[in-house]
Amino acid sequence: MAFRFELLHQSTLSRARVGRIHTSHGIIDTPNFVAVGTNGTIKGLDNETVDAIGLQLMFCNTYHLLLQPGTEVVRQAGGLHRFINRKLPIITDSGGFQVFSLAYGSVADELKSRGAKKSEGHVLKINEEGVWFRSYRDGRKVLLTPESSIAAQKAFGADIIIPFDELPPYHIDEGKLRRSLERTHRWEKRSLDEHLKSPNGQAIYAVVHGGVDQELRRQSCRFLSDLPFDGYAIGGSVGKNKEEMSAMLKDAVPRLPEEKPNHLLGIGDLQSLDALVPLGIDTFDSSYPTRAARHGFLLTWNGGIKAEKAECAAQFGPIEEGCHCTTCQNFSLAYLHHLFKARELTAYALATVHNLTFMVEKMRRMREAIAQNRI
Amino acid sequence: MAFRFELLHQSTLSRARVGRIHTSHGIIDTPNFVAVGTNGTIKGLDNETVDAIGLQLMFCNTYHLLLQPGTEVVRQAGGLHRFINRKLPIITDSGGFQVFSLAYGSVADELKSRGAKKSEGHVLKINEEGVWFRSYRDGRKVLLTPESSIAAQKAFGADIIIPFDELPPYHIDEGKLRRSLERTHRWEKRSLDEHLKSPNGQAIYAVVHGGVDQELRRQSCRFLSDLPFDGYAIGGSVGKNKEEMSAMLKDAVPRLPEEKPNHLLGIGDLQSLDALVPLGIDTFDSSYPTRAARHGFLLTWNGGIKAEKAECAAQFGPIEEGCHCTTCQNFSLAYLHHLFKARELTAYALATVHNLTFMVEKMRRMREAIAQNRI
Repeated sequence: MAFRFELLHQSTLSRARVGRIHTSHGIIDTPNFVAVGTNGTIKGLDNETVDAIGLQLMFCNTYHLLLQPGTEVVRQAGGLHRFINRKLPIITDSGGFQVFSLAYGSVADELKSRGAKKSEGHVLKINEEGVWFRSYRDGRKVLLTPESSIAAQKAFGADIIIPFDELPPYHIDEGKLRRSLERTHRWEKRSLDEHLKSPNGQAIYAVVHGGVDQELRRQSCRFLSDLPFDGYAIGGSVGKNKEEMSAMLKDAVPRLPEEKPNHLLGIGDLQSLDALVPLGIDTFDSSYPTRAARHGFLLTWNGGIKAEKAECAAQFGPIEEGCHCTTCQNFSLAYLHHLFKARELTAYALATVHNLTFMVEKMRRMREAIAQNRI
Repeated sequence: MAFRFELLHQSTLSRARVGRIHTSHGIIDTPNFVAVGTNGTIKGLDNETVDAIGLQLMFCNTYHLLLQPGTEVVRQAGGLHRFINRKLPIITDSGGFQVFSLAYGSVADELKSRGAKKSEGHVLKINEEGVWFRSYRDGRKVLLTPESSIAAQKAFGADIIIPFDELPPYHIDEGKLRRSLERTHRWEKRSLDEHLKSPNGQAIYAVVHGGVDQELRRQSCRFLSDLPFDGYAIGGSVGKNKEEMSAMLKDAVPRLPEEKPNHLLGIGDLQSLDALVPLGIDTFDSSYPTRAARHGFLLTWNGGIKAEKAECAAQFGPIEEGCHCTTCQNFSLAYLHHLFKARELTAYALATVHNLTFMVEKMRRMREAIAQNRI
């Protein structure tokens, strides 16, 4: 089935909207949360379990999959869905974010002064063609270009793919940011052209850039909206705090084609979801709930629970009454506390099942609230 | 239901036998393999999954559970089965093995010259009463005695429990080994007496000691056989190689009450199972298949597969054709290879499901072969 976005309801209270993305692997109800399964697996869970949780979209990273297992293995397996045994939709990124994080350090590193460029040795050359870098797996040189990124994403066969873009550092002067944006636009156009040679039922989302420069963001929205992308992701530096991010998105989102789905890259904590769904964002990917789970931080409707805290030791009920996840159905908070204290792998899996189920339910409730014009 | 052992078939070819142990949590078909779930979990798997695999007996360690979560929490939870959500039978040991490994180093350490006594600092005093040691969790002093070990195992409520015993070092002179055996016998008697005050439907297995000294092993069999234990475990140093172990067991097993089940402590690799089932051993516990799984070593009927080897990268079939485990039903060897290469937690869980299922099937086939007098 061809990719299609259906707008079901526009809130009367905000820009929040309820929609439905149709893909050949099923429906994604929006707004929705997208869990990160970098290497083709949500850490600690097998994909049968993830499907059962009802996670409608999973985010895999082209950079990682390109190096391990490599494009050819996934192609031979019959695509990523078959290789990893996922029946529901998948989105892949372009690899741009990771290679430029290698070059410049991540935005988070930069903002937190954790020392950017720590891994710059791996990036060998950046020019108009693309980026040469050295594989951390086997030391071979790899060229990532708009064309090779799309070729990889074709081999993977994700339902939604993303054009190759440049991720400029957060601290950059206006001139450099403008030149970076212009290159990103050329790269996205090349990516789109490459994609359109054989769409294969995949959708391609543009990535809006421009950092925290309002004028450049607007330019990016204009430029990309004029191209026949199937949806619009918002990437690059979204700001050094939630206020900067909200201000940028408040201005940018209304400039994107309303009839197409949009996606916010890399943001999906609970506070951001509450703040940004009203701005009209449709999907959000983040490793927040799965990483939190592995650190023993359990999400509930009354806030988070730190599983290792002493007060959990004798809580023989589930993490949360009424939760229908298999962890809460079968195991007590006391047992989870014990597994975390004993550093048992099982703890990570059980906590991840709970947190992902919470996110699925959270987004269901948000859609319900929008439908009732309460958001 | 009370504990009961039913002898179903005695092979005409060897001492191998097929039996059935009845417990209040269900049947254990013998001979059988017992997986180790030290902290109340098979590493990487939740107990719903483990039950579904059909693993009929799980081994938990009193030493570990005593320190975390502690006896009181398990008692409040309503016992170990409820605390860890296991519906099938459980066996717990006495804690003796671990505290004496702290004192002397493990037998394996000693034989491999890995430096015994590396952790002796944790054991504070050993005398007739029992062993004082310091908890590695919170530094508090703990006294483990026959009575306190049984009390803990009563709180846990395992189907089969084990008396407190001394584990002497492998390199020990005859006089010391004799004195250790005498103390072990006194401790086992005290454990049995403590148990009999409130049997609670639990069975207690003696532990035959005597190291590799044939005469002492015979003495131990005699002494313990005269006491009303429900079954007989074989512990202590069983020899520095498989020949020494086989010779010892060939002599000792026929000296145990035939109508009662026996158990070999800590041995359960495939080669040992093939060699020792014909000697009449009923159950074997070992962390071998689960540890092998976490190291990417997958068991098949054609030998082991190292999942990380390059030749697995494009094997798009299951680990083994015909295997009915959920890993083989849903995922390819190529995907497992990828998950191991990417160091994903999911790899450990998927491999463990396969290896445990293999062990369950291996033991089923062994029972079938014995029933047909082929072993």
